[in-house]
Amino acid sequence: MINLGMASLRLYAGLVGCRVGWGRICSKGTRDYNPKQMAIREKVFNTIISCFKRHGAENIDTPVFELKETLTGKYGEDSKLIYDLKDQGGELLSLRYDLTVPFARYLAMNKVTNIKRYHIAKVYRRDNPAMTRGRYREFYQCDFDIAGQYDPMIPDAECLKIVHEILSELELGDFRIKVNDRRILDGMFAVCGVPDDKFRTICSTVDKLDKMSWEDVRSEMVKEKGLSEEAADQIGQYVSLQGGMDLAERLLQDAKMSQSKQACAGLTDMKQLFSYLQLFQVTDKVVFDLSLARGLDYYTGVIYEAILTQTGPVPVAAAQNGAGEKAEEGVSVGSVAGGGRYDGLVGMFDPKGRKVPCVGVSIGIERVFSIMEQKASAEKVRTTETQVMVASAQKNLLEERLRLTAELWNAGIKAEVMYKKNPKLLSQLQHCEDSGIPLVAILGEQELKDGVVKLRTVHSREEIDVSRAKLVEEIKRRTSDV
Amino acid sequence: MINLGMASLRLYAGLVGCRVGWGRICSKGTRDYNPKQMAIREKVFNTIISCFKRHGAENIDTPVFELKETLTGKYGEDSKLIYDLKDQGGELLSLRYDLTVPFARYLAMNKVTNIKRYHIAKVYRRDNPAMTRGRYREFYQCDFDIAGQYDPMIPDAECLKIVHEILSELELGDFRIKVNDRRILDGMFAVCGVPDDKFRTICSTVDKLDKMSWEDVRSEMVKEKGLSEEAADQIGQYVSLQGGMDLAERLLQDAKMSQSKQACAGLTDMKQLFSYLQLFQVTDKVVFDLSLARGLDYYTGVIYEAILTQTGPVPVAAAQNGAGEKAEEGVSVGSVAGGGRYDGLVGMFDPKGRKVPCVGVSIGIERVFSIMEQKASAEKVRTTETQVMVASAQKNLLEERLRLTAELWNAGIKAEVMYKKNPKLLSQLQHCEDSGIPLVAILGEQELKDGVVKLRTVHSREEIDVSRAKLVEEIKRRTSDV
Repeated sequence: MINLGMASLRLYAGLVGCRVGWGRICSKGTRDYNPKQMAIREKVFNTIISCFKRHGAENIDTPVFELKETLTGKYGEDSKLIYDLKDQGGELLSLRYDLTVPFARYLAMNKVTNIKRYHIAKVYRRDNPAMTRGRYREFYQCDFDIAGQYDPMIPDAECLKIVHEILSELELGDFRIKVNDRRILDGMFAVCGVPDDKFRTICSTVDKLDKMSWEDVRSEMVKEKGLSEEAADQIGQYVSLQGGMDLAERLLQDAKMSQSKQACAGLTDMKQLFSYLQLFQVTDKVVFDLSLARGLDYYTGVIYEAILTQTGPVPVAAAQNGAGEKAEEGVSVGSVAGGGRYDGLVGMFDPKGRKVPCVGVSIGIERVFSIMEQKASAEKVRTTETQVMVASAQKNLLEERLRLTAELWNAGIKAEVMYKKNPKLLSQLQHCEDSGIPLVAILGEQELKDGVVKLRTVHSREEIDVSRAKLVEEIKRRTSDV
Repeated sequence: MINLGMASLRLYAGLVGCRVGWGRICSKGTRDYNPKQMAIREKVFNTIISCFKRHGAENIDTPVFELKETLTGKYGEDSKLIYDLKDQGGELLSLRYDLTVPFARYLAMNKVTNIKRYHIAKVYRRDNPAMTRGRYREFYQCDFDIAGQYDPMIPDAECLKIVHEILSELELGDFRIKVNDRRILDGMFAVCGVPDDKFRTICSTVDKLDKMSWEDVRSEMVKEKGLSEEAADQIGQYVSLQGGMDLAERLLQDAKMSQSKQACAGLTDMKQLFSYLQLFQVTDKVVFDLSLARGLDYYTGVIYEAILTQTGPVPVAAAQNGAGEKAEEGVSVGSVAGGGRYDGLVGMFDPKGRKVPCVGVSIGIERVFSIMEQKASAEKVRTTETQVMVASAQKNLLEERLRLTAELWNAGIKAEVMYKKNPKLLSQLQHCEDSGIPLVAILGEQELKDGVVKLRTVHSREEIDVSRAKLVEEIKRRTSDV
């Protein structure tokens, strides 16, 4: 927040179009994407989709709304943020809150017992929008999930590998992936003397450790949630621990922790996870962190969250994302991905309660967009792919321009022509400069007589005559690297 | 309807997953897309987006909901089909009904006076779903629009050229593009003696001519809408006319029609339009048809609609689309695209009423999906792009498989590995057969010792040893045409 400089402010002015003076005609907490933002978005999506496809994922899509009851009881306290549709005399419907619950509903409904799929779509949260911090009510999630009964931690490790690949390729600066396990958390609470019925509420307090000091967290546990000081202090010792496979081994030997069967199961799997992460060569970025809690009700095993560690020019302010639920609550660290294992969710939708184990990850793309937009704010980003502008310097050549343009379209060339009968050559050239069109095909009386076109390279202003028959080939040759 | 055969029934069973036995957990009139449907959808979108980009279009996106008042008064009688969100203590919101009104709102809000953009997104209509006929409550629209003050009919002609290109490339069978003009319709009504205040309602009756006989339409005009028999018969003579530039010329000479200034303006533009369409070489498919009316309130000039004329195996039943409003009302002809000129819509959102002339087209993609799905129902459609499966014939090689898989991922190869410690070779090969993976990289003790991988071609079962160092190159070489 504090570091919010002018560069960031400029960025936000671009982002929050819907707010400035137009509250009247645009809904709160949403935004339009203009062509420049769409060009950046397309690039980011291409990187992410390429990664998902590289890992053999299929693609699915689900409707933007679900039956209200499908979403009920899946998000804990956050359920109040669900958008409901008006009852117009039919079913009670709600806009999807994430892509995980619709995925589980899809698996149960279609009796799919194993699939590796990705799903990129918008989700909706009736949250207090903070668009200056990149928090919207409509935002994208990019989810990758693996469903099926497999040997432990292999798909889980692949999810982390995917986060590593995507964050590396997007070049967002350095990052860390924190890992923990719901079973380790629950075991820890048990051995620290937290009563069973307080696990959830204490867990959600621990979840705030990334934005509150330990003293404040401790105070909330003791004063607001009625935990004993002794239990709180024991928790404090554990949640300060960070490490790798070594830490999992140490905790398996820990006098207290080893008394919890649950914790031991989680720790054994954590060791296994790290051994696979070593094979995948991603342990440089992964930290086993006992303070990672994550809010959602449906996680049952390993959980993880990726944060950007770079504190430089990246705006702390744009801290929203569509992945980490934490981030939704207004974090200052940059959570850009999150996920975990949820082995019970699909069974909730199956009439016979048949379970399908799942693990997945969600990339928090809104924050990534914000960073990429800021990076691109100084650069010129092309918003079209037009290769050539069909122009003329003389009057009364509209028909010839249209004829040539159609020839180029039919040959697969990306071409534009001005919708004026007699445009000025200068305004035609200016349009090329403005929108980055590299070539101009100029027609004149003489060229028509000679059966040629004057092909002009915009940046060098060099012009050569090309015969009509060879024009397509020449344009392709010159733009093959564009 | 009548021709609905078994092939079609099979198709619909695939489409209407949400209905069969699962009404409980999936909302009415919506559908999930499974991986095969998504693969087809991706292919169709790529064709359409390539065309839009070839014509120099930029891309924008808007939120799925708008302020309710933004949509009010834009859709005539169809406004009752708008989905409203529940009032949860904020603004009154509605799901978008099309992409045209949000586009106009975007232009006014951002003071954009000229742009050529495409927008592909889902829209929502609380219609009576008829999923067996491909009519959904959530469906895609693919819109291309040109906004700006230009010389008459040049952008309009480009929109028709685009419809021609897309329908040709999608290979959906033969098609026709009907063209008319709101001013010609209004002029025709005037000279036929329709009272001014009945233009709209008579227009909406004429709009039914593609699914009702002239007798029924005449009867509705006379008996329900109180038009004189004489006026109805005069209309009847005009709306039976079809032609090209020649028809426009003839009507300009027509004793009655030529009395209407509006009609003359429309007819003069129609002649101009056809002259551009000749340059674009698309007149073979375009028909000037005086019975084309189109329902929406916002059209002010040229209007058009594309229909598939093939009556063969293409299911009449899947007649829904997202473009032609007619089709929404349950048509038997295959309307697959529609649009027109709307010069007044942007001004409705501008505080000072500043107008931005616009013309655009919407491709009705749901019907296209249905046809492509049916075409593909017999074929095997790949739902992943995986190039190689990393497998082993022997036990205890999980770690080696994971290590090699990560090497391939890091080299940009699309690779899969089974999430089992000791999978059977047969089940690994079976997965390749099932999902069309062309290559298998098989590891064994001997291969590891020799520093090679056995590379198997799935379809020929041929195997050769490739050194680890050359594996990536060899996989790329063998899959370069995949």
